[in-house]
Amino acid sequence: MNSENRQHLPVGVFDSGIGGLTVAREIMRQMPNEKIVYFGDTARVPYGNKSRETVRKYSEQIVRFLLSQEVKAIVVACNTASAYALPEIEKHCPVPIIGVVEPGAKTAADITKVGRIGVIGTSATVSSGIYTECIRRILPDAQVLGRACPLFVPLVEEGLWEDPVTEEIARRYLQELMDEGIDTLILGCTHYPLIRRTIGKVVGESVQLVNPAYETARELQQLLAREDLLSEEAPALGSAESQYRFFVSDMAEKFRSFANSIIKYGILSAKMIHIEQY
Amino acid sequence: MNSENRQHLPVGVFDSGIGGLTVAREIMRQMPNEKIVYFGDTARVPYGNKSRETVRKYSEQIVRFLLSQEVKAIVVACNTASAYALPEIEKHCPVPIIGVVEPGAKTAADITKVGRIGVIGTSATVSSGIYTECIRRILPDAQVLGRACPLFVPLVEEGLWEDPVTEEIARRYLQELMDEGIDTLILGCTHYPLIRRTIGKVVGESVQLVNPAYETARELQQLLAREDLLSEEAPALGSAESQYRFFVSDMAEKFRSFANSIIKYGILSAKMIHIEQY
Repeated sequence: MNSENRQHLPVGVFDSGIGGLTVAREIMRQMPNEKIVYFGDTARVPYGNKSRETVRKYSEQIVRFLLSQEVKAIVVACNTASAYALPEIEKHCPVPIIGVVEPGAKTAADITKVGRIGVIGTSATVSSGIYTECIRRILPDAQVLGRACPLFVPLVEEGLWEDPVTEEIARRYLQELMDEGIDTLILGCTHYPLIRRTIGKVVGESVQLVNPAYETARELQQLLAREDLLSEEAPALGSAESQYRFFVSDMAEKFRSFANSIIKYGILSAKMIHIEQY
Repeated sequence: MNSENRQHLPVGVFDSGIGGLTVAREIMRQMPNEKIVYFGDTARVPYGNKSRETVRKYSEQIVRFLLSQEVKAIVVACNTASAYALPEIEKHCPVPIIGVVEPGAKTAADITKVGRIGVIGTSATVSSGIYTECIRRILPDAQVLGRACPLFVPLVEEGLWEDPVTEEIARRYLQELMDEGIDTLILGCTHYPLIRRTIGKVVGESVQLVNPAYETARELQQLLAREDLLSEEAPALGSAESQYRFFVSDMAEKFRSFANSIIKYGILSAKMIHIEQY
Protein backbone atom coordinates (compact mmCIF):
# COMPACT_ATOMS: atom_id res chain seq x y z
CA MET A 1 0.00 0.00 0.00
CA ASN A 2 1.44 3.42 -0.87
CA SER A 3 1.27 6.26 1.61
CA GLU A 4 -1.83 7.81 0.03
CA ASN A 5 -3.77 4.61 0.56
CA ARG A 6 -2.56 4.44 4.13
CA GLN A 7 -3.71 7.95 5.08
CA HIS A 8 -7.19 6.75 5.99
CA LEU A 9 -5.88 4.08 8.37
CA PRO A 10 -6.15 4.67 12.12
CA VAL A 11 -3.41 5.63 14.56
CA GLY A 12 -2.82 3.01 17.25
CA VAL A 13 -2.48 4.33 20.81
CA PHE A 14 -1.80 2.19 23.87
CA ASP A 15 -1.32 2.48 27.58
CA SER A 16 -1.32 0.21 30.62
CA GLY A 17 -4.84 1.41 31.33
CA ILE A 18 -6.76 4.63 31.19
CA GLY A 19 -3.98 7.22 31.57
CA GLY A 20 -3.16 7.17 27.86
CA LEU A 21 -6.59 8.60 27.19
CA THR A 22 -5.12 12.02 27.96
CA VAL A 23 -2.86 11.46 24.94
CA ALA A 24 -5.71 10.16 22.79
CA ARG A 25 -7.71 13.25 23.79
CA GLU A 26 -4.92 15.55 22.59
CA ILE A 27 -4.75 13.68 19.26
CA MET A 28 -8.51 14.10 18.88
CA ARG A 29 -8.23 17.81 19.61
CA GLN A 30 -5.24 18.54 17.41
CA MET A 31 -6.04 16.15 14.53
CA PRO A 32 -9.81 15.82 14.28
CA ASN A 33 -9.51 13.96 10.95
CA GLU A 34 -7.60 11.03 12.39
CA LYS A 35 -9.08 7.72 13.41
CA ILE A 36 -7.78 6.08 16.58
CA VAL A 37 -7.60 2.50 17.80
CA TYR A 38 -6.90 2.63 21.54
CA PHE A 39 -5.79 -0.29 23.67
CA GLY A 40 -5.77 -0.08 27.49
CA ASP A 41 -4.18 -3.04 29.28
CA THR A 42 -6.68 -2.91 32.15
CA ALA A 43 -6.09 -6.55 33.12
CA ARG A 44 -2.42 -5.93 33.81
CA VAL A 45 -2.41 -2.31 34.95
CA PRO A 46 -0.28 -0.77 36.48
CA TYR A 47 3.01 -1.08 34.60
CA GLY A 48 4.82 1.41 36.86
CA ASN A 49 5.80 -1.17 39.46
CA LYS A 50 6.69 -3.96 37.05
CA SER A 51 10.12 -4.99 35.78
CA ARG A 52 11.60 -3.94 32.45
CA GLU A 53 11.31 -7.47 31.09
CA THR A 54 7.63 -7.78 31.94
CA VAL A 55 6.75 -4.34 30.55
CA ARG A 56 8.58 -5.15 27.36
CA LYS A 57 6.78 -8.47 26.90
CA TYR A 58 3.40 -6.86 27.47
CA SER A 59 4.14 -3.96 25.12
CA GLU A 60 5.22 -6.31 22.35
CA GLN A 61 1.94 -8.20 22.59
CA ILE A 62 0.02 -4.94 22.33
CA VAL A 63 2.00 -3.75 19.32
CA ARG A 64 1.17 -7.05 17.59
CA PHE A 65 -2.51 -6.51 18.40
CA LEU A 66 -2.47 -2.94 17.03
CA LEU A 67 -0.72 -4.05 13.85
CA SER A 68 -3.48 -6.64 13.41
CA GLN A 69 -5.86 -3.66 13.37
CA GLU A 70 -3.91 -2.15 10.44
CA VAL A 71 -2.73 1.01 12.11
CA LYS A 72 -0.53 3.41 10.14
CA ALA A 73 1.47 4.55 13.19
CA ILE A 74 1.67 3.75 16.90
CA VAL A 75 1.83 6.03 19.93
CA VAL A 76 3.12 4.47 23.14
CA ALA A 77 0.95 6.61 25.42
CA CYS A 78 2.52 5.27 28.60
CA ASN A 79 5.67 6.63 30.17
CA THR A 80 6.75 3.31 31.64
CA ALA A 81 6.36 1.46 28.35
CA SER A 82 8.10 4.34 26.52
CA ALA A 83 11.01 4.06 28.94
CA TYR A 84 11.27 0.27 29.12
CA ALA A 85 9.98 -1.09 25.81
CA LEU A 86 10.14 1.52 23.04
CA PRO A 87 13.90 1.35 22.35
CA GLU A 88 13.60 -2.38 21.55
CA ILE A 89 10.27 -2.25 19.74
CA GLU A 90 11.17 0.57 17.36
CA LYS A 91 13.99 -1.55 15.97
CA HIS A 92 11.57 -3.97 14.31
CA CYS A 93 8.25 -2.12 14.13
CA PRO A 94 6.98 -1.93 10.54
CA VAL A 95 5.12 1.38 11.09
CA PRO A 96 6.35 4.66 12.63
CA ILE A 97 6.19 4.50 16.43
CA ILE A 98 6.69 7.26 19.01
CA GLY A 99 6.55 7.43 22.77
CA VAL A 100 5.62 10.17 25.21
CA VAL A 101 9.06 10.66 26.72
CA GLU A 102 11.00 12.29 23.88
CA PRO A 103 8.40 14.96 23.06
CA GLY A 104 8.12 15.96 26.73
CA ALA A 105 11.88 15.92 27.22
CA LYS A 106 12.47 18.10 24.13
CA THR A 107 9.97 20.72 25.23
CA ALA A 108 11.40 20.83 28.74
CA ALA A 109 14.93 21.27 27.37
CA ASP A 110 13.62 24.07 25.13
CA ILE A 111 11.86 26.08 27.80
CA THR A 112 14.01 25.77 30.92
CA LYS A 113 15.96 28.93 31.70
CA VAL A 114 18.00 27.75 34.67
CA GLY A 115 18.67 24.25 33.30
CA ARG A 116 17.08 22.53 36.31
CA ILE A 117 14.16 20.31 35.33
CA GLY A 118 11.96 18.19 37.57
CA VAL A 119 10.36 14.95 36.40
CA ILE A 120 7.52 13.26 38.25
CA GLY A 121 6.12 9.84 37.36
CA THR A 122 5.90 6.22 38.45
CA SER A 123 8.83 4.54 40.20
CA ALA A 124 9.67 2.71 36.96
CA THR A 125 9.75 5.87 34.83
CA VAL A 126 11.77 7.87 37.33
CA SER A 127 14.27 5.16 38.14
CA SER A 128 14.77 4.33 34.45
CA GLY A 129 16.50 7.71 34.06
CA ILE A 130 15.00 7.94 30.58
CA TYR A 131 14.01 11.62 30.85
CA THR A 132 17.48 12.56 32.02
CA GLU A 133 18.98 10.73 29.08
CA CYS A 134 16.68 12.40 26.53
CA ILE A 135 17.06 15.89 28.02
CA ARG A 136 20.86 15.65 28.18
CA ARG A 137 21.03 14.72 24.51
CA ILE A 138 19.74 18.24 23.84
CA LEU A 139 21.03 20.08 26.90
CA PRO A 140 24.13 18.23 28.13
CA ASP A 141 24.49 20.33 31.29
CA ALA A 142 20.90 20.06 32.41
CA GLN A 143 20.21 18.97 35.95
CA VAL A 144 17.27 16.60 35.96
CA LEU A 145 15.64 15.79 39.29
CA GLY A 146 13.21 12.89 39.45
CA ARG A 147 10.55 12.07 42.03
CA ALA A 148 8.24 9.05 42.00
CA CYS A 149 4.68 9.93 43.04
CA PRO A 150 2.91 6.57 43.55
CA LEU A 151 -0.22 8.05 45.13
CA PHE A 152 -1.11 10.38 42.25
CA VAL A 153 -2.59 7.66 40.02
CA PRO A 154 -4.97 6.27 42.67
CA LEU A 155 -5.91 9.82 43.70
CA VAL A 156 -6.75 10.66 40.07
CA GLU A 157 -8.72 7.45 39.70
CA GLU A 158 -10.68 8.27 42.88
CA GLY A 159 -11.65 11.55 41.21
CA LEU A 160 -9.83 13.75 43.79
CA TRP A 161 -8.46 16.04 41.07
CA GLU A 162 -8.82 19.25 43.05
CA ASP A 163 -8.93 18.13 46.63
CA PRO A 164 -7.03 19.17 49.79
CA VAL A 165 -5.72 15.61 50.19
CA THR A 166 -4.22 15.59 46.69
CA GLU A 167 -2.78 19.06 47.36
CA GLU A 168 -1.19 17.88 50.62
CA ILE A 169 0.33 14.81 48.94
CA ALA A 170 1.55 16.97 46.04
CA ARG A 171 3.20 19.33 48.52
CA ARG A 172 5.10 16.44 50.13
CA TYR A 173 6.15 14.96 46.81
CA LEU A 174 7.20 18.25 45.22
CA GLN A 175 8.81 20.15 48.11
CA GLU A 176 12.28 18.76 47.48
CA LEU A 177 12.16 19.59 43.76
CA MET A 178 11.06 23.13 44.63
CA ASP A 179 13.90 23.48 47.15
CA GLU A 180 16.32 22.49 44.40
CA GLY A 181 15.12 25.44 42.32
CA ILE A 182 13.59 23.75 39.28
CA ASP A 183 11.87 26.09 36.83
CA THR A 184 10.28 23.35 34.68
CA LEU A 185 8.34 20.26 35.73
CA ILE A 186 7.51 17.37 33.40
CA LEU A 187 4.25 15.56 34.17
CA GLY A 188 5.86 12.23 33.38
CA CYS A 189 2.79 10.01 33.80
CA THR A 190 -0.24 10.17 31.58
CA HIS A 191 -2.60 10.47 34.54
CA TYR A 192 -1.02 13.65 35.84
CA PRO A 193 -2.46 16.16 33.34
CA LEU A 194 -5.78 15.52 35.08
CA ILE A 195 -4.40 17.05 38.30
CA ARG A 196 -2.28 19.72 36.63
CA ARG A 197 -4.25 22.50 38.34
CA THR A 198 -3.49 21.10 41.78
CA ILE A 199 0.15 20.54 40.85
CA GLY A 200 0.33 24.04 39.39
CA LYS A 201 -1.09 25.51 42.59
CA VAL A 202 1.57 23.77 44.67
CA VAL A 203 4.58 24.69 42.52
CA GLY A 204 3.42 28.22 41.76
CA GLU A 205 3.84 30.36 38.68
CA SER A 206 7.60 30.31 38.60
CA VAL A 207 7.59 26.67 37.50
CA GLN A 208 6.36 25.79 34.01
CA LEU A 209 4.53 22.50 33.64
CA VAL A 210 5.24 20.35 30.59
CA ASN A 211 2.42 18.05 29.51
CA PRO A 212 3.87 15.26 27.36
CA ALA A 213 0.39 14.30 26.13
CA TYR A 214 0.11 17.65 24.36
CA GLU A 215 3.67 17.55 23.01
CA THR A 216 3.28 13.97 21.81
CA ALA A 217 0.18 14.81 19.77
CA ARG A 218 2.13 17.70 18.19
CA GLU A 219 5.03 15.41 17.37
CA LEU A 220 2.68 12.81 15.94
CA GLN A 221 1.23 15.42 13.61
CA GLN A 222 4.69 16.38 12.36
CA LEU A 223 5.63 12.73 11.92
CA LEU A 224 2.48 11.91 9.93
CA ALA A 225 2.99 15.00 7.78
CA ARG A 226 6.60 14.03 7.09
CA GLU A 227 5.62 10.51 6.07
CA ASP A 228 2.67 11.76 4.01
CA LEU A 229 0.33 9.84 6.29
CA LEU A 230 -1.90 12.67 7.57
CA SER A 231 -5.56 12.08 6.94
CA GLU A 232 -6.79 14.98 4.84
CA GLU A 233 -10.47 14.61 5.37
CA ALA A 234 -12.81 13.66 8.18
CA PRO A 235 -13.62 9.93 8.25
CA ALA A 236 -16.58 9.26 5.98
CA LEU A 237 -18.13 7.00 8.59
CA GLY A 238 -19.16 10.01 10.59
CA SER A 239 -20.03 8.65 14.02
CA ALA A 240 -17.62 8.90 16.90
CA GLU A 241 -17.87 5.16 17.43
CA SER A 242 -16.34 4.24 14.14
CA GLN A 243 -13.73 6.98 14.23
CA TYR A 244 -12.53 6.01 17.71
CA ARG A 245 -12.38 2.37 18.73
CA PHE A 246 -11.40 1.24 22.22
CA PHE A 247 -10.11 -2.15 23.32
CA VAL A 248 -9.20 -3.31 26.80
CA SER A 249 -7.93 -6.52 28.38
CA ASP A 250 -10.49 -6.47 31.22
CA MET A 251 -13.33 -4.49 32.80
CA ALA A 252 -14.65 -2.90 29.63
CA GLU A 253 -17.60 -1.27 31.39
CA LYS A 254 -15.50 0.43 34.06
CA PHE A 255 -13.08 1.67 31.39
CA ARG A 256 -15.94 3.12 29.39
CA SER A 257 -17.30 5.02 32.35
CA PHE A 258 -13.93 6.55 33.31
CA ALA A 259 -13.08 7.27 29.69
CA ASN A 260 -16.30 9.18 29.28
CA SER A 261 -15.33 11.45 32.17
CA ILE A 262 -12.11 12.40 30.33
CA ILE A 263 -13.05 12.40 26.66
CA LYS A 264 -16.04 14.35 25.54
CA TYR A 265 -16.31 12.83 22.10
CA GLY A 266 -18.61 10.02 23.17
CA ILE A 267 -16.97 6.66 23.70
CA LEU A 268 -19.74 4.41 22.60
CA SER A 269 -18.06 1.11 23.32
CA ALA A 270 -14.97 -0.59 24.65
CA LYS A 271 -14.36 -4.16 23.62
CA MET A 272 -12.54 -6.73 25.70
CA ILE A 273 -9.87 -8.85 24.00
CA HIS A 274 -7.47 -11.56 25.21
CA ILE A 275 -4.17 -9.74 24.87
CA GLU A 276 -2.07 -12.77 25.93
CA GLN A 277 -2.97 -14.36 22.60
CA TYR A 278 -1.06 -11.74 20.62
CA MET B 1 1.08 -40.56 51.66
CA ASN B 2 -0.84 -40.91 54.93
CA SER B 3 -1.59 -37.89 57.06
CA GLU B 4 1.34 -38.47 59.39
CA ASN B 5 3.75 -38.28 56.50
CA ARG B 6 2.09 -35.13 55.28
CA GLN B 7 2.38 -33.25 58.56
CA HIS B 8 5.84 -31.98 57.71
CA LEU B 9 4.73 -30.52 54.37
CA PRO B 10 4.35 -26.73 54.05
CA VAL B 11 1.15 -24.73 53.98
CA GLY B 12 0.65 -22.81 50.72
CA VAL B 13 -0.44 -19.18 51.07
CA PHE B 14 -1.16 -16.85 48.19
CA ASP B 15 -2.23 -13.31 47.47
CA SER B 16 -2.26 -10.89 44.55
CA GLY B 17 0.86 -9.30 46.04
CA ILE B 18 2.13 -8.38 49.46
CA GLY B 19 -1.11 -7.98 51.43
CA GLY B 20 -1.35 -11.69 52.16
CA LEU B 21 1.83 -11.38 54.20
CA THR B 22 -0.36 -10.17 57.09
CA VAL B 23 -2.00 -13.62 56.95
CA ALA B 24 1.34 -15.42 56.66
CA ARG B 25 2.53 -13.43 59.65
CA GLU B 26 -0.42 -14.61 61.76
CA ILE B 27 0.26 -18.23 60.76
CA MET B 28 3.90 -17.79 61.80
CA ARG B 29 2.81 -16.34 65.15
CA GLN B 30 0.09 -18.86 65.93
CA MET B 31 1.75 -21.98 64.46
CA PRO B 32 5.51 -21.60 64.76
CA ASN B 33 6.05 -25.24 63.75
CA GLU B 34 4.51 -24.84 60.31
CA LYS B 35 6.42 -24.32 57.09
CA ILE B 36 5.01 -21.86 54.57
CA VAL B 37 5.31 -21.49 50.81
CA TYR B 38 4.04 -18.01 49.92
CA PHE B 39 3.22 -16.82 46.43
CA GLY B 40 2.59 -13.11 45.69
CA ASP B 41 1.34 -12.33 42.18
CA THR B 42 3.32 -9.09 41.98
CA ALA B 43 3.29 -9.05 38.15
CA ARG B 44 -0.49 -8.94 38.04
CA VAL B 45 -1.35 -7.07 41.25
CA PRO B 46 -3.95 -5.67 42.02
CA TYR B 47 -6.81 -8.16 41.71
CA GLY B 48 -9.36 -5.80 43.27
CA ASN B 49 -10.22 -4.04 40.02
CA LYS B 50 -10.20 -7.13 37.81
CA SER B 51 -13.15 -9.20 36.65
CA ARG B 52 -14.30 -12.43 38.26
CA GLU B 53 -13.16 -14.45 35.24
CA THR B 54 -9.63 -13.01 35.29
CA VAL B 55 -9.22 -13.44 39.05
CA ARG B 56 -10.39 -17.03 38.78
CA LYS B 57 -7.96 -17.84 35.97
CA TYR B 58 -5.04 -16.31 37.87
CA SER B 59 -5.96 -18.07 41.11
CA GLU B 60 -6.16 -21.44 39.38
CA GLN B 61 -2.65 -21.00 38.00
CA ILE B 62 -1.37 -20.18 41.47
CA VAL B 63 -3.06 -23.19 43.06
CA ARG B 64 -1.39 -25.40 40.44
CA PHE B 65 1.96 -23.82 41.30
CA LEU B 66 1.46 -24.36 45.04
CA LEU B 67 0.45 -27.97 44.49
CA SER B 68 3.66 -28.44 42.52
CA GLN B 69 5.43 -27.40 45.75
CA GLU B 70 3.68 -30.25 47.61
CA VAL B 71 1.70 -28.19 50.08
CA LYS B 72 -0.59 -29.97 52.53
CA ALA B 73 -3.18 -27.18 52.60
CA ILE B 74 -3.78 -23.84 50.88
CA VAL B 75 -4.81 -20.47 52.29
CA VAL B 76 -6.25 -17.97 49.81
CA ALA B 77 -4.89 -14.92 51.63
CA CYS B 78 -6.64 -12.46 49.34
CA ASN B 79 -10.19 -11.26 49.82
CA THR B 80 -10.82 -10.75 46.11
CA ALA B 81 -9.62 -14.23 45.20
CA SER B 82 -11.55 -15.70 48.14
CA ALA B 83 -14.68 -13.98 46.87
CA TYR B 84 -14.27 -14.67 43.15
CA ALA B 85 -12.27 -17.88 42.85
CA LEU B 86 -12.50 -20.02 46.00
CA PRO B 87 -16.02 -21.43 45.44
CA GLU B 88 -14.91 -22.92 42.10
CA ILE B 89 -11.44 -24.02 43.18
CA GLU B 90 -12.49 -25.86 46.33
CA LYS B 91 -14.62 -28.19 44.21
CA HIS B 92 -11.58 -29.83 42.67
CA CYS B 93 -8.66 -28.98 44.97
CA PRO B 94 -6.93 -32.16 46.20
CA VAL B 95 -5.83 -30.57 49.52
CA PRO B 96 -7.86 -28.63 52.11
CA ILE B 97 -8.24 -24.98 51.05
CA ILE B 98 -9.62 -22.01 52.99
CA GLY B 99 -10.07 -18.33 52.23
CA VAL B 100 -10.04 -15.22 54.41
CA VAL B 101 -13.70 -14.33 54.00
CA GLU B 102 -15.47 -17.06 55.98
CA PRO B 103 -13.33 -16.78 59.12
CA GLY B 104 -13.79 -12.99 59.21
CA ALA B 105 -17.50 -13.24 58.51
CA LYS B 106 -18.03 -15.82 61.26
CA THR B 107 -16.24 -13.75 63.88
CA ALA B 108 -18.17 -10.63 62.92
CA ALA B 109 -21.48 -12.51 63.17
CA ASP B 110 -20.40 -13.80 66.59
CA ILE B 111 -19.45 -10.48 68.13
CA THR B 112 -21.94 -7.96 66.74
CA LYS B 113 -24.54 -6.91 69.31
CA VAL B 114 -26.73 -4.68 67.15
CA GLY B 115 -26.54 -6.87 64.03
CA ARG B 116 -25.11 -4.06 61.88
CA ILE B 117 -21.72 -4.92 60.41
CA GLY B 118 -19.52 -2.82 58.16
CA VAL B 119 -17.20 -4.35 55.57
CA ILE B 120 -14.39 -2.42 53.90
CA GLY B 121 -12.27 -3.74 51.04
CA THR B 122 -11.56 -3.44 47.34
CA SER B 123 -14.36 -2.68 44.88
CA ALA B 124 -14.35 -6.32 43.80
CA THR B 125 -14.69 -7.70 47.32
CA VAL B 126 -17.38 -5.25 48.35
CA SER B 127 -19.44 -5.53 45.18
CA SER B 128 -19.22 -9.33 45.22
CA GLY B 129 -21.47 -9.29 48.30
CA ILE B 130 -19.56 -12.32 49.60
CA TYR B 131 -19.31 -11.08 53.19
CA THR B 132 -23.05 -10.39 53.31
CA GLU B 133 -23.72 -13.90 52.05
CA CYS B 134 -21.42 -15.55 54.61
CA ILE B 135 -22.65 -13.44 57.54
CA ARG B 136 -26.31 -14.05 56.72
CA ARG B 137 -25.77 -17.80 56.70
CA ILE B 138 -25.08 -17.44 60.45
CA LEU B 139 -27.13 -14.35 61.27
CA PRO B 140 -29.96 -14.16 58.74
CA ASP B 141 -31.19 -10.74 59.91
CA ALA B 142 -27.78 -9.04 59.90
CA GLN B 143 -27.46 -5.76 58.10
CA VAL B 144 -24.15 -5.71 56.24
CA LEU B 145 -22.92 -2.38 54.91
CA GLY B 146 -20.04 -2.40 52.42
CA ARG B 147 -17.67 0.38 51.41
CA ALA B 148 -14.86 0.15 48.85
CA CYS B 149 -11.71 1.99 49.96
CA PRO B 150 -9.45 2.08 46.87
CA LEU B 151 -6.91 4.49 48.36
CA PHE B 152 -6.06 2.40 51.42
CA VAL B 153 -3.79 -0.04 49.58
CA PRO B 154 -1.61 2.63 47.94
CA LEU B 155 -1.49 4.56 51.24
CA VAL B 156 -0.30 1.42 53.05
CA GLU B 157 2.26 0.74 50.34
CA GLU B 158 3.55 4.32 50.65
CA GLY B 159 4.12 3.61 54.33
CA LEU B 160 1.58 6.21 55.55
CA TRP B 161 0.22 3.85 58.20
CA GLU B 162 -0.30 6.50 60.86
CA ASP B 163 -0.53 9.72 58.92
CA PRO B 164 -3.02 12.60 58.89
CA VAL B 165 -3.71 12.00 55.19
CA THR B 166 -4.66 8.36 55.80
CA GLU B 167 -6.78 9.48 58.74
CA GLU B 168 -8.58 12.06 56.59
CA ILE B 169 -9.26 9.51 53.84
CA ALA B 170 -10.41 6.97 56.44
CA ARG B 171 -12.82 9.53 57.86
CA ARG B 172 -14.36 10.09 54.42
CA TYR B 173 -14.63 6.40 53.64
CA LEU B 174 -16.02 5.41 57.04
CA GLN B 175 -18.36 8.28 57.92
CA GLU B 176 -21.37 6.75 56.25
CA LEU B 177 -20.88 3.37 57.95
CA MET B 178 -20.60 5.18 61.30
CA ASP B 179 -23.78 7.13 60.61
CA GLU B 180 -25.56 3.84 59.99
CA GLY B 181 -24.63 2.72 63.49
CA ILE B 182 -22.39 -0.29 62.84
CA ASP B 183 -20.79 -1.83 65.93
CA THR B 184 -18.44 -4.18 64.05
CA LEU B 185 -16.13 -3.47 61.12
CA ILE B 186 -14.43 -6.17 59.02
CA LEU B 187 -11.04 -5.22 57.59
CA GLY B 188 -11.87 -7.00 54.34
CA CYS B 189 -8.54 -6.50 52.57
CA THR B 190 -5.29 -8.04 53.71
CA HIS B 191 -3.49 -4.68 53.64
CA TYR B 192 -5.82 -3.05 56.13
CA PRO B 193 -4.51 -4.65 59.34
CA LEU B 194 -1.42 -2.49 58.79
CA ILE B 195 -3.53 0.67 59.27
CA ARG B 196 -5.84 -0.75 61.91
CA ARG B 197 -4.69 1.84 64.46
CA THR B 198 -5.67 4.70 62.18
CA ILE B 199 -8.97 3.02 61.33
CA GLY B 200 -9.57 2.33 65.02
CA LYS B 201 -8.94 5.99 65.86
CA VAL B 202 -11.51 7.11 63.28
CA VAL B 203 -14.29 4.67 64.24
CA GLY B 204 -13.69 4.94 68.00
CA GLU B 205 -14.04 2.37 70.74
CA SER B 206 -17.69 1.58 70.15
CA VAL B 207 -16.82 -0.25 66.93
CA GLN B 208 -14.97 -3.56 67.11
CA LEU B 209 -12.52 -4.28 64.32
CA VAL B 210 -12.37 -7.80 62.88
CA ASN B 211 -9.03 -8.81 61.37
CA PRO B 212 -9.62 -11.75 59.01
CA ALA B 213 -5.87 -12.48 58.92
CA TYR B 214 -5.96 -13.40 62.60
CA GLU B 215 -9.21 -15.37 62.32
CA THR B 216 -7.96 -17.23 59.24
CA ALA B 217 -4.82 -18.42 60.99
CA ARG B 218 -7.01 -19.68 63.86
CA GLU B 219 -9.28 -21.50 61.45
CA LEU B 220 -6.31 -23.01 59.64
CA GLN B 221 -5.04 -24.38 62.92
CA GLN B 222 -8.40 -26.03 63.65
CA LEU B 223 -8.56 -27.42 60.12
CA LEU B 224 -5.06 -28.91 60.28
CA ALA B 225 -5.80 -30.40 63.70
CA ARG B 226 -9.03 -31.94 62.40
CA GLU B 227 -7.26 -33.49 59.43
CA ASP B 228 -4.34 -34.64 61.57
CA LEU B 229 -2.04 -32.44 59.51
CA LEU B 230 -0.61 -30.18 62.23
CA SER B 231 3.14 -30.23 62.35
CA GLU B 232 4.10 -31.37 65.81
CA GLU B 233 7.66 -30.27 65.87
CA ALA B 234 9.71 -27.35 64.61
CA PRO B 235 11.17 -27.94 61.13
CA ALA B 236 14.48 -29.72 61.45
CA LEU B 237 16.01 -27.42 58.87
CA GLY B 238 16.17 -24.64 61.41
CA SER B 239 16.81 -21.52 59.38
CA ALA B 240 14.01 -19.11 58.56
CA GLU B 241 14.86 -19.37 54.91
CA SER B 242 14.03 -23.01 54.62
CA GLN B 243 10.98 -22.81 56.87
CA TYR B 244 9.48 -19.91 54.91
CA ARG B 245 9.86 -19.76 51.15
CA PHE B 246 8.61 -16.83 49.08
CA PHE B 247 7.81 -16.75 45.37
CA VAL B 248 6.62 -13.83 43.25
CA SER B 249 5.76 -13.25 39.61
CA ASP B 250 7.81 -10.02 39.34
CA MET B 251 9.99 -7.58 41.28
CA ALA B 252 11.42 -10.04 43.77
CA GLU B 253 13.74 -7.45 45.33
CA LYS B 254 10.98 -4.90 46.01
CA PHE B 255 8.81 -7.64 47.50
CA ARG B 256 11.59 -8.72 49.78
CA SER B 257 12.12 -5.23 51.09
CA PHE B 258 8.42 -4.60 51.81
CA ALA B 259 8.00 -8.08 53.26
CA ASN B 260 10.83 -7.45 55.68
CA SER B 261 9.04 -4.37 56.99
CA ILE B 262 6.02 -6.52 57.89
CA ILE B 263 7.47 -9.86 58.93
CA LYS B 264 10.18 -9.98 61.52
CA TYR B 265 11.25 -13.56 60.93
CA GLY B 266 13.84 -12.71 58.31
CA ILE B 267 12.77 -13.21 54.72
CA LEU B 268 16.02 -14.24 53.22
CA SER B 269 14.94 -14.55 49.64
CA ALA B 270 12.04 -14.23 47.23
CA LYS B 271 12.28 -16.10 43.97
CA MET B 272 10.68 -15.00 40.75
CA ILE B 273 8.74 -17.58 38.74
CA HIS B 274 6.71 -17.46 35.50
CA ILE B 275 3.23 -18.01 36.83
CA GLU B 276 1.60 -18.05 33.37
CA GLN B 277 3.27 -21.42 32.82
CA TYR B 278 1.18 -23.12 35.51
